[in-house]
Amino acid sequence: MSITKLGEARYDSPVSFSGSDEVFMPAEIQWHGGKVPEELILFEKAGPRKKVFFDPKNTRAAIVTCGGLCPGLNNVIRSVTRELIRGYAIKSVIGIRGGYRGLDPKRGKRPIELTDDLVEDIHKEGGTMLGTSRGPVDTGIAVDFLINNEVNILFTVGGDGTQRGGNDLFEEAHKRGHELAVVGIPKTIDNDVHFVTRTFGFDTAVDEAVRVINSAHTEARSVDNGVSIVKLMGRHAGFIAAAATVASQDVNFCLVPEVPFVLEGPRGLLAAMERRLGKKSHAVLVVAEGAGQELLESSEERDESGNLRLKDIGHFLKDQFQVHFKKRGIEMTLRYFDPSYQIRGCPANTQDALICDFMGRHAVHAAMSGKTGLVISYLHSHFVHVPISVIARGSKRLELNGELWNAVLSSTRQRARFE
Amino acid sequence: MSITKLGEARYDSPVSFSGSDEVFMPAEIQWHGGKVPEELILFEKAGPRKKVFFDPKNTRAAIVTCGGLCPGLNNVIRSVTRELIRGYAIKSVIGIRGGYRGLDPKRGKRPIELTDDLVEDIHKEGGTMLGTSRGPVDTGIAVDFLINNEVNILFTVGGDGTQRGGNDLFEEAHKRGHELAVVGIPKTIDNDVHFVTRTFGFDTAVDEAVRVINSAHTEARSVDNGVSIVKLMGRHAGFIAAAATVASQDVNFCLVPEVPFVLEGPRGLLAAMERRLGKKSHAVLVVAEGAGQELLESSEERDESGNLRLKDIGHFLKDQFQVHFKKRGIEMTLRYFDPSYQIRGCPANTQDALICDFMGRHAVHAAMSGKTGLVISYLHSHFVHVPISVIARGSKRLELNGELWNAVLSSTRQRARFE
Amino acid sequence: MSITKLGEARYDSPVSFSGSDEVFMPAEIQWHGGKVPEELILFEKAGPRKKVFFDPKNTRAAIVTCGGLCPGLNNVIRSVTRELIRGYAIKSVIGIRGGYRGLDPKRGKRPIELTDDLVEDIHKEGGTMLGTSRGPVDTGIAVDFLINNEVNILFTVGGDGTQRGGNDLFEEAHKRGHELAVVGIPKTIDNDVHFVTRTFGFDTAVDEAVRVINSAHTEARSVDNGVSIVKLMGRHAGFIAAAATVASQDVNFCLVPEVPFVLEGPRGLLAAMERRLGKKSHAVLVVAEGAGQELLESSEERDESGNLRLKDIGHFLKDQFQVHFKKRGIEMTLRYFDPSYQIRGCPANTQDALICDFMGRHAVHAAMSGKTGLVISYLHSHFVHVPISVIARGSKRLELNGELWNAVLSSTRQRARFE
Amino acid sequence: MSITKLGEARYDSPVSFSGSDEVFMPAEIQWHGGKVPEELILFEKAGPRKKVFFDPKNTRAAIVTCGGLCPGLNNVIRSVTRELIRGYAIKSVIGIRGGYRGLDPKRGKRPIELTDDLVEDIHKEGGTMLGTSRGPVDTGIAVDFLINNEVNILFTVGGDGTQRGGNDLFEEAHKRGHELAVVGIPKTIDNDVHFVTRTFGFDTAVDEAVRVINSAHTEARSVDNGVSIVKLMGRHAGFIAAAATVASQDVNFCLVPEVPFVLEGPRGLLAAMERRLGKKSHAVLVVAEGAGQELLESSEERDESGNLRLKDIGHFLKDQFQVHFKKRGIEMTLRYFDPSYQIRGCPANTQDALICDFMGRHAVHAAMSGKTGLVISYLHSHFVHVPISVIARGSKRLELNGELWNAVLSSTRQRARFE
Repeated sequence: MSITKLGEARYDSPVSFSGSDEVFMPAEIQWHGGKVPEELILFEKAGPRKKVFFDPKNTRAAIVTCGGLCPGLNNVIRSVTRELIRGYAIKSVIGIRGGYRGLDPKRGKRPIELTDDLVEDIHKEGGTMLGTSRGPVDTGIAVDFLINNEVNILFTVGGDGTQRGGNDLFEEAHKRGHELAVVGIPKTIDNDVHFVTRTFGFDTAVDEAVRVINSAHTEARSVDNGVSIVKLMGRHAGFIAAAATVASQDVNFCLVPEVPFVLEGPRGLLAAMERRLGKKSHAVLVVAEGAGQELLESSEERDESGNLRLKDIGHFLKDQFQVHFKKRGIEMTLRYFDPSYQIRGCPANTQDALICDFMGRHAVHAAMSGKTGLVISYLHSHFVHVPISVIARGSKRLELNGELWNAVLSSTRQRARFE
Repeated sequence: MSITKLGEARYDSPVSFSGSDEVFMPAEIQWHGGKVPEELILFEKAGPRKKVFFDPKNTRAAIVTCGGLCPGLNNVIRSVTRELIRGYAIKSVIGIRGGYRGLDPKRGKRPIELTDDLVEDIHKEGGTMLGTSRGPVDTGIAVDFLINNEVNILFTVGGDGTQRGGNDLFEEAHKRGHELAVVGIPKTIDNDVHFVTRTFGFDTAVDEAVRVINSAHTEARSVDNGVSIVKLMGRHAGFIAAAATVASQDVNFCLVPEVPFVLEGPRGLLAAMERRLGKKSHAVLVVAEGAGQELLESSEERDESGNLRLKDIGHFLKDQFQVHFKKRGIEMTLRYFDPSYQIRGCPANTQDALICDFMGRHAVHAAMSGKTGLVISYLHSHFVHVPISVIARGSKRLELNGELWNAVLSSTRQRARFE
Repeated sequence: MSITKLGEARYDSPVSFSGSDEVFMPAEIQWHGGKVPEELILFEKAGPRKKVFFDPKNTRAAIVTCGGLCPGLNNVIRSVTRELIRGYAIKSVIGIRGGYRGLDPKRGKRPIELTDDLVEDIHKEGGTMLGTSRGPVDTGIAVDFLINNEVNILFTVGGDGTQRGGNDLFEEAHKRGHELAVVGIPKTIDNDVHFVTRTFGFDTAVDEAVRVINSAHTEARSVDNGVSIVKLMGRHAGFIAAAATVASQDVNFCLVPEVPFVLEGPRGLLAAMERRLGKKSHAVLVVAEGAGQELLESSEERDESGNLRLKDIGHFLKDQFQVHFKKRGIEMTLRYFDPSYQIRGCPANTQDALICDFMGRHAVHAAMSGKTGLVISYLHSHFVHVPISVIARGSKRLELNGELWNAVLSSTRQRARFE
Repeated sequence: MSITKLGEARYDSPVSFSGSDEVFMPAEIQWHGGKVPEELILFEKAGPRKKVFFDPKNTRAAIVTCGGLCPGLNNVIRSVTRELIRGYAIKSVIGIRGGYRGLDPKRGKRPIELTDDLVEDIHKEGGTMLGTSRGPVDTGIAVDFLINNEVNILFTVGGDGTQRGGNDLFEEAHKRGHELAVVGIPKTIDNDVHFVTRTFGFDTAVDEAVRVINSAHTEARSVDNGVSIVKLMGRHAGFIAAAATVASQDVNFCLVPEVPFVLEGPRGLLAAMERRLGKKSHAVLVVAEGAGQELLESSEERDESGNLRLKDIGHFLKDQFQVHFKKRGIEMTLRYFDPSYQIRGCPANTQDALICDFMGRHAVHAAMSGKTGLVISYLHSHFVHVPISVIARGSKRLELNGELWNAVLSSTRQRARFE
């Protein structure tokens, strides 16, 4: 897929190693019959280019982090800053504070100058040193701000709303004749973005989820008919729940948004839990926050990012189990675990530290070469440029015939319909 | 304080190193004017004795774990078992399953034989391999069970209810002419037992609480006016909350049962929080579950261990802050953390592993020498025998002039009354 | 690349989800000019097939682990066992003890029966429950053993020597008319196998290496002219050293086998270290064990696996620095860290736990469908079948124009030749 | 024991909570026959006093860290600084850089001003932000420096050499009429100081040692006749080795300086190891660096702190085992672990974080009240003032009849003489 360019890259790059616009990677690499698919989507490989569009000594860049926390935000900020300063020696780098709000002088705090020293140790802490917030910014006001601050490049770290907002900024700036490159780093701890194999923060989230599942398993096993419910992130897709289930191997039920289930009847969750307790006297259930929404009353409420507010499936299940087992006269001890905020606030583990470093540097290379309207994606173990237009959070789902879900079924021994 | 003995210890101990009944430790070691207090309470030092009361080759011991989980239970089970088998070579060791319920053949599962091999790796997992439950057992039924199973020694790992129950068993057995030694290992993650400096599991609990506080701090700092509330264990005493606050150094408000507080007015918590946000834009509040109960409506509900059910101070504060700041027109983002079950289910850290090993072995030495009606206590860095009669959970409180609470005040900069 | 089959798969698979022999993945997915390369290497996708070759109820499988330790060995053993038992319900699974030696009744211990229960918790420990050893086994003796024990499937977890040895067993068994499927799971903590993106254990090794680098950095910074040398694994390729350097961001020199260097002269390491100390007063140097071998005297010694014994570059550098700085009259405090055995013995982290589970299950699917002479490879985030004949440890090297090495150069600021 | 005072404390303390000079603690609390010992050593309780000697607004304090690294140094620096600034609001706090060398303008770097903000996050890192070095400073030069910099209080964090050096500084300053309080915080990771129950950093060291022992155990168990040797800190006393052995429960031989042993003969280590391998096919041996020195040739070499250089018992044992088993024709695989620097460089765990915070604050209280020539000691779970004159590293040894060593014997099943 072709990437928008601001214009011809004329300046020699100060970064000695160099990639090429001529290398592409196919989006789909599983081929039936070993035949190259007829309609191949190709993505440009990320990396430094021989020529850059922006003259480093006159270039100013800004970084903004938006939406909920995710392990690795500080690593991205640091690597973007370091590559701009150490690699390209640009004029200055500023950090927009408090998310998009920081692009509106009336609503946000003033930006801060990011230096090599200032970012030295920030990757050792979770969260974002720039702060964050939810919700959009007025495009006109933000472009005024960027022009007034002579910003040529904006790095947007956030979800699909953030990325679409970034694209609007590019278009508005373009209209006004201000050359602004906007390059996104997709952020979703849920790992549910199409054309992205793994988003940063996901691995750390699984690590921490497994730690909590360990305690949940211990609690359940230590009493007669102990049941532990662990609610994990996953609005539209159950990747965290599934990966934590497989990594832990101590989970007996894994509920995800992709697999509807019923409570009642012989193929329902309640009967399945009863059978499990009958056999093993304890159970660990992991539920993604977006699972079983069809069982709850509908809501139209939305949060500030415009996401539909989910009904709380965790507490719903807790109540259902308690009512059911009381009715059935079966003693049961239920423990509820809700570690989402604890997970989000962790520092990146080493795998996420690596991916964040690569993403940050690749975003810089893309922007310096004058590319815009793209995000950096880690796809099939490589980094590519993906147009913002094709990115949408929630668009990737667990494949129910794929190895991750199969591994869940094998380790939990659960059946699709709790038969 | 003198310890009850079943009779004269006549057998040579197979354990070569040996202590003496003649060494005592003062309960109070802070002396005004350097003068020995007039009424000194003295505790007998724990340790192996030269002679034992029970003939090892005819002795059978049982272990039971009761009440809520606490890191280190498996370590205690393991060290008791190993010392009985390796040190004294007794006839057999059985594990009572599911708490006191396991002493009632109608209510519990059959006990299991504990061997050197079976316990080899159990200390690497949290929880209790024997299972646990809350609530008492009928004394008559339990003594029948112990007599029928030819149990001479019972080790009771649990809170003060468990220990008092254990004493009843000794007395009933005594009445019936069955020589039964009952030795307790006091268990309370809250560390609130008088004449005990540190209970096992407490250090691990503080470790894990600090991990959660780190995430809470990260969440709070990453948004404007971010407030994180972390609810921790502590029914009657705030030791976990206070120690985690000092170890973390990132907490701004620490609420404990020992220090009443008000919400409203210039010296109230709400105003103090508002001042904090005005200055620093974020705050971390740690609250022990038993804090601020006077602010909540009273309840007479009790759990199965007979503990008064606490009202939920954490959610109460969360609601109060949300109402207050909405009324005051101040935007605020509140995150709530409730990691108690997660903390309880962890394996013991190395410090707790050490203390559990010592406690388990000392309990064996005491029982083999024919002592009964006591618990093993870690006091002033030594292990002593404390009569069950003086042990009561909740009886130790934070000293408001002591160094722990002073360190809390120094690191949080909070005032006693939030002035 | 086509995979050898023992014959037609005629039995219906008891595993309900199913893949197909008709899906392939290209080995090379970075295409110049976006054009499909003319000579494409294609690998068959791993996964369960609709039909199996072996009749489960008459099938016996064996697993063997060979060579040095690597995090995740127990996870592989567990998932292979569970998939065979839970997924395919085969007759029995045996574990060969002590590596290939266990296939020779005169040299090794008797195998053990692997059951669902026996493997329940083994993944929580590092190492291999089966034991391991280096070196080959006599092919004739081993095939006798396999025939006598009615083994139809052998899973070989080890390096390229192990895999080639496995292939010999298949060929010898075939000659004798015994249908034996041999499926390998490639094991090298160094991650240096061509056609494999990531081998299991690598991620955990990087995690642990980063922990040690943290201490090394602390030591170096705490004294004037503190120098810490950390020797890491990497005989032929510097992947662990490079990844740990990038994940840590605290390393100043990263030496790998792929990049020769000189000690003396203005472009030599000694002068570069002197410049670094002059500027920053401390330095952290990470060196892969196979780096700088050209600087050491040659040796022809080999270990039992037939690997050339490496000269010790770590101690060599330590000595060189000490001599150099003494000669130059510069005080320096040098600390040496050699954590390789410590790293190898760790349990798998969650990422390695996932990859091991997938690999183990895929190996089972491949073998049950009658395929042989292959290894399971994790390539471009997918799992494929790769013929043993193309696998060779040490064949993959760091690309000096690739993003990992570029990230090393950016974070260390070292130049290729220490200019 | 009485503590030297600079003079009468006349100023009201700004620290509201207050202790008293009139509370004392006995050094010995294990009393034979329950009788108060005739010659009781009493230590003054640490804590804030009602009156202070130094007028805060005119007081300047300095901190110096000396000798090898130990987890918790930054925590101590931070709590001293914070208590001086937040508690007493003194004029200024300076950090002496690079150990005692920093008191000599010709040899060291200039000191830095320590502020509340500067120390905010330092406790999250290991090492010392001030730097350290070994060896003394010329007393005259150092006192000149302290007088010229108007330093009234010096906090010395270091071993007994450091503390005696600090006392010399006090005496020299006193001679010259400069009122200087010198208060020490005893630092020895080995925990071998008399009248100190636990020194800071010790708990963290045990934590990390146990991690390494886990890997050592895994290595040993994974091969036939695998032997792992783990060398740990402990020049004169085996507390780390013993505590790590008991916490781990996976160690088979624990060698400490307090227990001499022989290699040869039926009661020698070599025969004991052979018996162990015969029975269990693997072994883990932990050796404190000061153990078995009598087996090595003597040396008179000393390091810069004046400590006798120890011969390397770890490598000596490694060689002895290899020679012995070769001679006996027994195949054995030996792995050697030497994690000392890795352990020293870790950040403090939560238990050490607590003890460091208390120690730092108590040192401040003591100094402000005009006391000098003392160190803060954690004794029997309380903090007391101990005169420098009675402190000497290496003076506390493992009690061979005490519970720690008994727990070592129980868990390793080793006999004193390997019978």
